[in-house]
Amino acid sequence: MTSSRSEDMKPKSRNIFWHDGDITRNDRERARGHRGATLWFTGLSGSGKSTLARALEAALYERGCVVYVLDGDNVRHGLNRDLGFSPADRTENIRRIGEVAKLFTDAGALTLTAFISPYREDRESVRALMPEGDFIEVYVDCSLDVCEQRDPKGLYKKARRGEIPEFTGISAPYEAPASPEIVLRSDALAPDACVEQLIQYLETNGYLSAGAAVEAGA
Amino acid sequence: MTSSRSEDMKPKSRNIFWHDGDITRNDRERARGHRGATLWFTGLSGSGKSTLARALEAALYERGCVVYVLDGDNVRHGLNRDLGFSPADRTENIRRIGEVAKLFTDAGALTLTAFISPYREDRESVRALMPEGDFIEVYVDCSLDVCEQRDPKGLYKKARRGEIPEFTGISAPYEAPASPEIVLRSDALAPDACVEQLIQYLETNGYLSAGAAVEAGA
Repeated sequence: MTSSRSEDMKPKSRNIFWHDGDITRNDRERARGHRGATLWFTGLSGSGKSTLARALEAALYERGCVVYVLDGDNVRHGLNRDLGFSPADRTENIRRIGEVAKLFTDAGALTLTAFISPYREDRESVRALMPEGDFIEVYVDCSLDVCEQRDPKGLYKKARRGEIPEFTGISAPYEAPASPEIVLRSDALAPDACVEQLIQYLETNGYLSAGAAVEAGA
Repeated sequence: MTSSRSEDMKPKSRNIFWHDGDITRNDRERARGHRGATLWFTGLSGSGKSTLARALEAALYERGCVVYVLDGDNVRHGLNRDLGFSPADRTENIRRIGEVAKLFTDAGALTLTAFISPYREDRESVRALMPEGDFIEVYVDCSLDVCEQRDPKGLYKKARRGEIPEFTGISAPYEAPASPEIVLRSDALAPDACVEQLIQYLETNGYLSAGAAVEAGA
């Protein structure tokens, strides 16, 4: 039901601290000292998306931020386990991730997503879901050569042998972002430098207050 | 990519606070002083699910908790906008909400969901998705008479006129929980008493530290 709570429905107990009206995103952001936003990491397999997202998560966590990473590990076998790799399913995969990122962002979290997301149109659809400024496209720009040398899961080798059809970069296209908010040259910069670049962007653009890290807890 | 970060990839800058390994749910929970969990509100239309979830959200927010409500307002027109009301779509609706609640819970949030979710099997499927103790079923128990008198959206009137097919409680079944963790008699208790009952459950069962509210922020 969505009937508005009337005055006489307010809790009167001293154990309950009543907030005047529903909690808004603005409330959450004031309380946390940072904005909610989605940092959408996109790039080839092996470019470093998940590694960099996890490293940024750790740095933001140490500053006391509410931060969460969505990646293949927690989405592909859960929410999107009914989806395959057809073009329609790939698009639906990205759409759902975008909707979930939007919810986390509304909850005031710095939300980091790490998916190849090779199609520009799919990424732009996610951007369009969100209010202006909530979607920060992070292009993890790493040459195919370097990704293929790294090949952390042996996927490029399989793709070269034709064992994986439509593998991004080999037998399927990767559409680089036209105007991403951030470009990380992950084949030239060390991860710590990439994380610094990300933090600097968040500070400079008012997502995060500059200055000392907050003690994160016990 | 999921290659493990090697030692020499650790950021060396003094601006970056490095966490040894990825941030775990346990880290988040220690830092926040409360556990992540899903409180799954179920009950008839008009029983008070959303109102009580929003009131609990406000109380938990004032205590400094990370808390978020998933309900029709932010899910039906977003993540689940491709779903209708067929039996298969209703089941998929609940499955996806369950998967999203699981992600929020993993992020350390107290996650409140407010959906009629009339089928026992669907709710049990969500429970089965999560580790033991993460899923708290909250039965908002309100007689059909009272719900129909409240009728905040005029839906019961429409359903009685036959304008809404398969309306829960009128022309479609509501399967009450067999052994919910919490029963809220929302037709007998005021909302503040229901919220106290919920907070007490969370404290008694170790989801939330008992005691004074934390200053939530500026």
